[in-house]
Amino acid sequence: MTKKVGIESIAYYIPDNYKSNFNFKEEFEIDDYFIVEKIGVKRVSQKLATEDTSDLCIKAWESLRQNSAIEKEEIDCVIVVTQNPDNNIPHVSAKVHEALDLKENCACFDISLGCSGFVYALSVIESFIETNNFKKGLLFTADPYSKIIDRKDKNTALLFGDAAAVTVVGQKPIFCSGKYTFGTIGKMHKELICNNSLLYMNGRSIFDFVARYIPKDMNLLLEKNEMRMDSIDLFLFHQGSKYIIDTLVKRLKISAEKAPFLANEYGNTVSSTIPIMLSDFLDNHAYTNIVICGFGVGLSWSSCVLKRVINNK
Amino acid sequence: MTKKVGIESIAYYIPDNYKSNFNFKEEFEIDDYFIVEKIGVKRVSQKLATEDTSDLCIKAWESLRQNSAIEKEEIDCVIVVTQNPDNNIPHVSAKVHEALDLKENCACFDISLGCSGFVYALSVIESFIETNNFKKGLLFTADPYSKIIDRKDKNTALLFGDAAAVTVVGQKPIFCSGKYTFGTIGKMHKELICNNSLLYMNGRSIFDFVARYIPKDMNLLLEKNEMRMDSIDLFLFHQGSKYIIDTLVKRLKISAEKAPFLANEYGNTVSSTIPIMLSDFLDNHAYTNIVICGFGVGLSWSSCVLKRVINNK
Repeated sequence: MTKKVGIESIAYYIPDNYKSNFNFKEEFEIDDYFIVEKIGVKRVSQKLATEDTSDLCIKAWESLRQNSAIEKEEIDCVIVVTQNPDNNIPHVSAKVHEALDLKENCACFDISLGCSGFVYALSVIESFIETNNFKKGLLFTADPYSKIIDRKDKNTALLFGDAAAVTVVGQKPIFCSGKYTFGTIGKMHKELICNNSLLYMNGRSIFDFVARYIPKDMNLLLEKNEMRMDSIDLFLFHQGSKYIIDTLVKRLKISAEKAPFLANEYGNTVSSTIPIMLSDFLDNHAYTNIVICGFGVGLSWSSCVLKRVINNK
Repeated sequence: MTKKVGIESIAYYIPDNYKSNFNFKEEFEIDDYFIVEKIGVKRVSQKLATEDTSDLCIKAWESLRQNSAIEKEEIDCVIVVTQNPDNNIPHVSAKVHEALDLKENCACFDISLGCSGFVYALSVIESFIETNNFKKGLLFTADPYSKIIDRKDKNTALLFGDAAAVTVVGQKPIFCSGKYTFGTIGKMHKELICNNSLLYMNGRSIFDFVARYIPKDMNLLLEKNEMRMDSIDLFLFHQGSKYIIDTLVKRLKISAEKAPFLANEYGNTVSSTIPIMLSDFLDNHAYTNIVICGFGVGLSWSSCVLKRVINNK
C-alpha cells in the first residue's frame, strides 16, 4: 500500500505592481463602499507585460527555494493549472521543466481549469503520485487574467489580480486531504468565457450559481467526511468577491472569522487564490481541519477537508 | 481497497473529409516513395470549418453510444486532452458536459498535452477514479491541428489529421495498465511549438529525440513491469510517421508486424492516435499484452503495458 501523500509546503509570487481601484471611482461610477464592502478588493496585482505565465511559476518556485530545501531529483511530476498559457503548444509545465532544470523522468502536464482548479488539481496530483509511487510533485497555479481583461469592463477589471503559487505534494505532508466533492454545470459555461482574447463574466449568474450550489456542497462534503460544521476550524473559499464570501457565511451560519476574505490587497487570483491563503495557515497549529472550496469557470466547483498531520517527521 | 480500473471501451470519430497528399507532389516537390514509404500518410482527415473541438468529442461519444450501453448516471468524470480547445476559457470538457447532459456531480477538466497525451491522461484518469472511488470516467482526446497548420509547410501539412476518441475507464475493464514510464525534455520545447496560431515543428529534432529516448524507455518500461520484449504481443507507438516507426522497429529488433504503422488513411491525429489504433484490438484475444507509447510536444513521452483482463464479467 502506497503511503498517503499530501501538502508539504506552499510558496507564491504576487507581482509588486498594483492598480488601485480607488482610481477608477469616476470611470466606473462607484464609491468607497462598493470597493471596500461589496467587492472587497482595494487594488489588483498585475504582472509586467514582459512576464509570461511560466515566468510567474518560476518566481513562485524561487520563493519556495528561499524557505525550504527541496531536492530536484525527488520531483517526479509537475502540473501547471492555467487557462492563460504562454502558448497553446507546448504546455507551460514543459517550459517550467526547462527553467527549473528538472530530471528527464519527470511527468509534466497542464490542467485547464479556472477558480476551482487548485482543488481539482490537488486531487489529481495526489492520486497520480500515489498510483505511480512518486516521491514528490509540484502543483503550480498561474492564470494571469490581465492578459484577457477588458479594462473597460467594471465586472472584471476591478476584481482579478495576477499571481502564481507552487504547492509541494509528497510523502511528508503537513496536511492530508479527506474525501473530495466535485461538480460541473456545463450548461452555464457561457457565463464565464473568453472570446477573441477578451474575458466576459456575468457576475450575477456566477453569484446565483455559488449561492445555489456551494452551501449544498458544504453539507455533502461534511457528510462524506463524517464531520460536523463546528469541527471545521477554517473555510477557505475561493475569493470571488467579499459579497460572495459574506453570503456564504450567512447561508452556512458560520462566523465571519471562520471564512475570511483575504484578497483585499491583490484581488481574485483565480486558481492561486486558495494556495496563497492556505500558505499562511500551514504552520499555525490552531487550525487542524481546514475546508478548501473552489468555484468558477465551467461552471464548476470542488471542495475537500484538509486534516493536519500530527507527528509526521 | 478500491478495485483496479481500466479500459472498458473506445470509440472514435474521423471526419469524412480528406486531403490527398498525392495532390501536393508538385507544390512540395515530393514523390510517391516519400508519401508511401517515408511519411506513410496518403491522405489526412480534416474537420469542417464549422466543427469545433467539442463537436469532435461529441461525435466520438455518439459513435460510442451506437455500440455500447452506458448509463450517464455512472459517469463521474470527464477529461478532454487537447491543446486546441474551442476557447481557452472555459475548458472543452465543460461544453462536453453540457452536450452530453451529464449529472451535476461530475468532475470535468482538460489536460494540455500533445501526442503523448493519451498515455499520460490514462494514468491520470485511472488514479483519479480509483482514489475518488468513482464508477466510470470518459477520457476524450481531440486536438484538431488543422486549426493551426501552415498549409505551405511540408513538415506538418502532409502529416496531421483531425480526429477525436473517447475511452471509457471503469471497474469492468478489458485492459488494465501495468506500471507507467514518463519523461520530459523541457529544453527541447521549442522544437514543436505554436506561435501566433501557426504550428512549427522541427521534424529532424523530433526524430532524433524519438530515436534517442524511446528505445531506452522501452527497456525501462519492460524492466519496471518485469516483462521481456517477446512477451509483448503488440507495440502501439505514436504514429509520428512511417519512418519513425520503421526506425523504432529496427532499434528494438522487433518484427514490423508487432509495431504496425496504421495512420496511412488519416494521418497523425495527435493524442487520438493511440486510442484509435487500440480500439481495433480490444476484442481480439490474440493480443494479451499491448504496449502503448506516446511521444511529442514538450518534448515528452509516456508508456505503459496494457494487460488483458480475463474473466472480468
